[in-house]
Amino acid sequence: MRGRGVWDFMAGRDGIFIRACRMKKSSRTPVWFMRQAGRFLPEYRKLRKQYGFMDIVKDPKLAAAVTLMPVERLGVDAAILFSDIMTPLEGMGVRFRIEDGIGPVVDAPVRDFYDVESLRELDPYESTAFVMEAVRRSKRALHGRTPLIGFAGAPFTLATYLVEGKRSEDLSVTKSFMHSKSDAWHALMERLAAASAEYLSAQVLSGADAVQLFDSWAGGLSPADYEEYVLPYVKDIFRRLRGMEVPTIYFSTGTSVMLDSVGRTGANVISVDWRIDIGDAWDKIGKKALQGNLDPALMLCDIKTIRERAGRILDRVGGRPGHIFNLGHGMPPTTPVDNAAGLVSAVHEYGAH
Amino acid sequence: MRGRGVWDFMAGRDGIFIRACRMKKSSRTPVWFMRQAGRFLPEYRKLRKQYGFMDIVKDPKLAAAVTLMPVERLGVDAAILFSDIMTPLEGMGVRFRIEDGIGPVVDAPVRDFYDVESLRELDPYESTAFVMEAVRRSKRALHGRTPLIGFAGAPFTLATYLVEGKRSEDLSVTKSFMHSKSDAWHALMERLAAASAEYLSAQVLSGADAVQLFDSWAGGLSPADYEEYVLPYVKDIFRRLRGMEVPTIYFSTGTSVMLDSVGRTGANVISVDWRIDIGDAWDKIGKKALQGNLDPALMLCDIKTIRERAGRILDRVGGRPGHIFNLGHGMPPTTPVDNAAGLVSAVHEYGAH
Repeated sequence: MRGRGVWDFMAGRDGIFIRACRMKKSSRTPVWFMRQAGRFLPEYRKLRKQYGFMDIVKDPKLAAAVTLMPVERLGVDAAILFSDIMTPLEGMGVRFRIEDGIGPVVDAPVRDFYDVESLRELDPYESTAFVMEAVRRSKRALHGRTPLIGFAGAPFTLATYLVEGKRSEDLSVTKSFMHSKSDAWHALMERLAAASAEYLSAQVLSGADAVQLFDSWAGGLSPADYEEYVLPYVKDIFRRLRGMEVPTIYFSTGTSVMLDSVGRTGANVISVDWRIDIGDAWDKIGKKALQGNLDPALMLCDIKTIRERAGRILDRVGGRPGHIFNLGHGMPPTTPVDNAAGLVSAVHEYGAH
Repeated sequence: MRGRGVWDFMAGRDGIFIRACRMKKSSRTPVWFMRQAGRFLPEYRKLRKQYGFMDIVKDPKLAAAVTLMPVERLGVDAAILFSDIMTPLEGMGVRFRIEDGIGPVVDAPVRDFYDVESLRELDPYESTAFVMEAVRRSKRALHGRTPLIGFAGAPFTLATYLVEGKRSEDLSVTKSFMHSKSDAWHALMERLAAASAEYLSAQVLSGADAVQLFDSWAGGLSPADYEEYVLPYVKDIFRRLRGMEVPTIYFSTGTSVMLDSVGRTGANVISVDWRIDIGDAWDKIGKKALQGNLDPALMLCDIKTIRERAGRILDRVGGRPGHIFNLGHGMPPTTPVDNAAGLVSAVHEYGAH
C-alpha cells in the first residue's frame, strides 16, 4: 500500500486510537472530535477569509493543512480528513453548493426513478482524485504519529440531501419518496451504498487508518423504517470493507432508542450521542467499541463543567477497553479553543490517574 | 364548576377519549391530532388572511371557532384549544411575537438571575382571561359531544424560548445557562412550573376535560440532565393537578430512550413519538395510557401508506385499553385534508372490525 511506513504501522495499527477501535487495552482513553477541523479554530477561520469551503476541500495541500490543525492545536489522538460528506456526489453527476449557515444545496433534487437512474457510478480515483491526494498528504504530514480517519456519508443521510435538496427538519419529502416510490428508493440506496463503499476503500488504499460513516439524520426514522429502508445498505458498506485492515466507525444521532439495530450494522465502533448514559449504551450494545458521548452544547460552558461532565462519562466507562472519547455530534463553531484543548487534557489526565 | 352539564359529563367523563386516558376499555380507539386546528385546514388558512395568529388566540370567539374546525371537518374524538404555549408568558411580563415560519421570538431573552427575578407571577384569570373565555366558548359549542383538551408549555420547553430568544437547534444557550448558572435555572423552572400549573388549573375550572403539557424539546437533553434540571418541575405540575378530576397528558419528542424518566412525570397519559415501536414503548412504560405514535411525515404520503402504517400501530397495540391514536408530533402544515380525514376514518373503522 502506498505511503505506509514503520511509523504508520505504530500509530496506524497499534496506537491508542486503533487499539480502542479493536477493543484492546491501552494506557489511556483516546480522544478526537467531530468537526475538530472547523470554524471554532482561529487558524481555520483565517484560511476561510481567503478560500471558499469547497476550494479548501478540493485543494489537497489546503485540505491536508486543515486536517492537521487540530492535531497541532489540541493534541487529539486522531486526525480526520477535512472534507464534506457531499464531496463524492459531484463525481456521480450531482451539482450542489455548500452555503454558509445552511449547508449543502442541491441544484436538481432526486425525486423519481429517472433521477436515480441518471446518477453515475463513482470512480473515486478519477472524480475524487483530490481527496485521495489529500489523504496521502495528510498521512505524510502526520508522520505516522497520529492516525488518520477517512470518512463518507451514509446512504440515508446523503439521500436526504439529494431528495430534499437541502437540510430538512422533518425529512418529509425523503420519507414520502421512501414510502410512495420504494423501488426507486431502494435503487437510490443501492447506488449510494456502492459509491460510499468504493470511496471509503479508496481512502483506505490511499492511507486512511480508519473510516467513519456519517449517518447524521438516521435518528429521524422510526425503528421499522430504519430496518427496512436503511440498515441493509449500511450493512452492505461495512461488509464490503471487511477485507480491508482498518477499523470502521458508524456515526448517527438520535438513534439510542434503536441501538440494537445500529449495533447490527457491522461497524467495529458505534458512535453514540449524549441522549443515553454511556454505561447503559454499553449494556445494550454488548461487545463493541463505543465512541462518545459528551453533549456538544457543553463546549460552550465553563471548563469546570466540561471537565466534570467528561469525568462522569469516563467514570461510567470505568476503564472498559474500547472507548473512544468524542462529542455526541460536531464541535459547535462558537466553542472557545481553550475549552476544546482543556477537554483533551482532561481526558488525557484522567487516564494518568 | 362553570359550564358543566349532563352532556359534558357524558363526553367529559365517559367518552372514549377520557376512557382511554383512564385506561378503561371502550368500543374503539379515540383519535385526535396535535396541531389539528392549524394551517393544513383551508378554513383556518382563510381566517388567517384576515387575522394574525395572536389576534385569533386573543379573540375568544375566533379561538373557539378554530378549536371546533377539526371536530367538524375530520370527526376527531377530542378538540384541543387553539392557542400557543407562549400565550401565558405575556402575563408574566415577557414580550414576544410569533413569526410565520420561525415561531416565537422573545424581545429580551432571560439570561441571568435578575431576568428570572423580574418575571411576574401569573394570574391566569386576569392575564389570560381571553383563554378562559375561549375554553368556555369552545366547551359550549362542543355541546358536550366532544371533550376539550386544554394545554400549557412545560417549563423546560418554555425556558428554551425564554433563554435562547427563539427556537434553537442545539439549545446551547439554554444548556449553558442550566449548567453555569444552575441556581438561576432552578429559580426559572420553579416560576414556570408554578405558572403552568396555575394556567392549567384555570383551564380545567373553565371547562377543559383534560390537559396536555407540551415538552417538545425535552429530547435534546441527556437523561442525566433531564432528571436533574427538568423532571422535578414536570412532576411538580402534575402533582399540583392531581386534585382536579381531569386526566393529564405529557407530550415530548425524542425521549423514547428515557421512557423510564418520562414515565415518572406523574401524567396519566404519556405521548410517544414515532422513534419507538409502540409495543416496545408499552413494555417499557408499564401500566400507563399511551398516546401516539404515527410519524407525522407520513401524512404527506398516499392514503394507502397512511392507512397501512396506522394499521401496524393498532395491530401492535392489539386492543390494549389506554391507547389514544395521534401523531408523534404536530400535523404538517402541508398535509392534504383528505389524508387527515382518511386517517381518522381508518382508526375508526379499525375499531369496527
